[in-house]
Amino acid sequence: MITSNARAEPDIDLAGSLFCELALRTGDGDGITRISFGEGEQFAHDLLRREGGRLGLRVESDAACNLYLTLEGRTPGHRVIIGSHLDSVPHGGNFDGAAGVLCGLSVLSGLARAGVQPPRDISVMAIRAEESTWFAASYIGSRAAFGQLESRELNEVRRASDGLPLGAAITAAGGHVEQLHAGEAQIDPAEVGLFIEPHIEQGPCLVTENKPVGIVTGIRGSFRYRSASCTGSYAHSGATPRHLRHDAVRATAALVTEMDEVWDEAELNGDDLAITFGKLATDPGEHAFSKVAGRADFSLDVRSQSSARLEQVASELSGLVERLSRQYSVRFDLGPRTGTFPALMDRGVVAALETACSVEGVPAITMPSGAGHDAAVFAGMGIPTGMLFIRNENGSHNPDESMDIEDFAAAARVLMRICLEPPQ
Amino acid sequence: MITSNARAEPDIDLAGSLFCELALRTGDGDGITRISFGEGEQFAHDLLRREGGRLGLRVESDAACNLYLTLEGRTPGHRVIIGSHLDSVPHGGNFDGAAGVLCGLSVLSGLARAGVQPPRDISVMAIRAEESTWFAASYIGSRAAFGQLESRELNEVRRASDGLPLGAAITAAGGHVEQLHAGEAQIDPAEVGLFIEPHIEQGPCLVTENKPVGIVTGIRGSFRYRSASCTGSYAHSGATPRHLRHDAVRATAALVTEMDEVWDEAELNGDDLAITFGKLATDPGEHAFSKVAGRADFSLDVRSQSSARLEQVASELSGLVERLSRQYSVRFDLGPRTGTFPALMDRGVVAALETACSVEGVPAITMPSGAGHDAAVFAGMGIPTGMLFIRNENGSHNPDESMDIEDFAAAARVLMRICLEPPQ
Repeated sequence: MITSNARAEPDIDLAGSLFCELALRTGDGDGITRISFGEGEQFAHDLLRREGGRLGLRVESDAACNLYLTLEGRTPGHRVIIGSHLDSVPHGGNFDGAAGVLCGLSVLSGLARAGVQPPRDISVMAIRAEESTWFAASYIGSRAAFGQLESRELNEVRRASDGLPLGAAITAAGGHVEQLHAGEAQIDPAEVGLFIEPHIEQGPCLVTENKPVGIVTGIRGSFRYRSASCTGSYAHSGATPRHLRHDAVRATAALVTEMDEVWDEAELNGDDLAITFGKLATDPGEHAFSKVAGRADFSLDVRSQSSARLEQVASELSGLVERLSRQYSVRFDLGPRTGTFPALMDRGVVAALETACSVEGVPAITMPSGAGHDAAVFAGMGIPTGMLFIRNENGSHNPDESMDIEDFAAAARVLMRICLEPPQ
Repeated sequence: MITSNARAEPDIDLAGSLFCELALRTGDGDGITRISFGEGEQFAHDLLRREGGRLGLRVESDAACNLYLTLEGRTPGHRVIIGSHLDSVPHGGNFDGAAGVLCGLSVLSGLARAGVQPPRDISVMAIRAEESTWFAASYIGSRAAFGQLESRELNEVRRASDGLPLGAAITAAGGHVEQLHAGEAQIDPAEVGLFIEPHIEQGPCLVTENKPVGIVTGIRGSFRYRSASCTGSYAHSGATPRHLRHDAVRATAALVTEMDEVWDEAELNGDDLAITFGKLATDPGEHAFSKVAGRADFSLDVRSQSSARLEQVASELSGLVERLSRQYSVRFDLGPRTGTFPALMDRGVVAALETACSVEGVPAITMPSGAGHDAAVFAGMGIPTGMLFIRNENGSHNPDESMDIEDFAAAARVLMRICLEPPQ
């Protein structure tokens, strides 16, 4: 049964046909929609379960409906997990999340078809509910696998599309929410020797650098105010003197501009930071060209690889909000803060990925991940963790995601190599 | 028939009952809506026509459906016109516009009831279509009265509520649009000795200064970009490095902040200026807390009593737009520019109003008008023109306009005095 590794190649044809099936069955006319614990995501999980059965893999799921397809290794313990998610944002693309899972499956299929038994168990984990547009909570599936989902989240966080509480959505998908309330873990971190998450790059760096893959050094943490507002008073634009205005647009624009200076300062200091006001909107029912704006709603997303920098920016933000409130006679209400912790990738795993790229002849760069990924949870649990980015044009979270299957195949070769020769 | 002026008092009861009738019949459940050349405005014109008949005034209208109610004077020529508008913004208040017309009517009713024949004809002019929210053109009724409406405006400017072209709306209201195309004037400027527009103050100055009336020294001109936009690219907020972003929110916020500095500079120079971004809105169908904003729509309203300052700001704006486009890798499209010219009030009229206030014991301040008014057109035609502001709480263009009838009565007394003793 045990043959030379050299004969096994990732099963790119299988991945290609599954990408097709996913696009066909989870397309929404505009892009791709796979709802966390709902339609689309469930189809993808059923598809993976079917393929796992066909390949003769061990098929399991946990209390949060994460799916595990396992090719058994020669020796128990220190297993390898290749994981990513199968949900998508609304009107997203076909590759964000799914590419990582199918990359793992192409490795297992390649090994199974070639009759290669790996040194350790290799599981492909299809993780639930990574896209926090559906439920305003981060890394739901992977935290659940470690028994770390809070009862408060299960009861109170509701799905944006239909208001269903997270716990009820998990139950509806066939999960066991009582085990999650009890904090029961599916994965014992001590049993896992390596976690790898392949994922399309969501930014333009690999395209700009002309490299098919990137080896991630760390995942940014973040803090977010998704529904912040600035309240002033509506007033006639001609008749209201400047010193009597309570102008929500000027105040919010000043906040955006001042936060840009906070970013400048961090860059000068060599610190990783990204500040985004993705939404800034006066009220279409109230605003007018001849009215001083009485309200502006906005969102703020701050990311950094450094927890200390995140906290420093949070403190600068609260100072700014206080000063600008006085300066413009307005009231800022930032609303609830959510966020994620930063995570460094394991140095040994980064080095092993560099070696694997080099042996496979795959040009690669090392780079930080600006976006959050389930890998951050595995790293946080002390598991040796790495991420492999795959070049992708046009960004992610939109229907125009564009990954070349050749780049995917290159990443799969690197992935197969590190699974067969995991770092000690 | 001719009696002493001392016996005549403005008919405040009449005005009070007409304010009630207007509120009752043009209320929209939320505020007041009197559509230019449409429902609400027409009701108000019919109401004034009815009262003019009851008072035995000469009742006339012109090609643009402006209404004139005239009390004949002892001597022909150099007549006095008291004018303001009867339309309102959508969900506006009961006093913006109507207070000026009813103030004039209270004077004519007071004189007629006391049997006082004024030295010159006094006409109350109910002007059409002053609120440019309905038709994106300024001072429609008053410009029409001087034969100054352009054929292009009559044919092309459409009502925001239903898309009806201005000319068709005038025809539907009973006007004679062919006379307007021909540029026929109803009013010969040489025949008018005085134009006075009473109007509620639309800002907070009289409330702040604790004075019932204000004597206007000049009316600001303006330039406007009602539908401007900034276009960048949507991108992942975590995965897109700063130098590769095309962030429409940062770029537009920088424009707002820089224009604030332009305002600072004008103030340091002692120049009158007001800059308002009343609307600033990312696209609710596209924006997200985790996306760099690819587009922001905004409006810009710039006002000043100085034409030179307006042009200087316009030139600084275009420099800024060019610089910020490069700096943030975005594209600004300001869209069509509209605007009005500034107008100074007649010094003799201002002095006569000051005297009238003093004689009537009405505390007053002189002040600029930040908003545009039909009086600007009369001043532009070389007619000795003045404006009288009446104290009003909560601003205008909203349902909460709040004018005290005592302040209205004080303004009416001042108005009656200047009509009976117009400046030479």
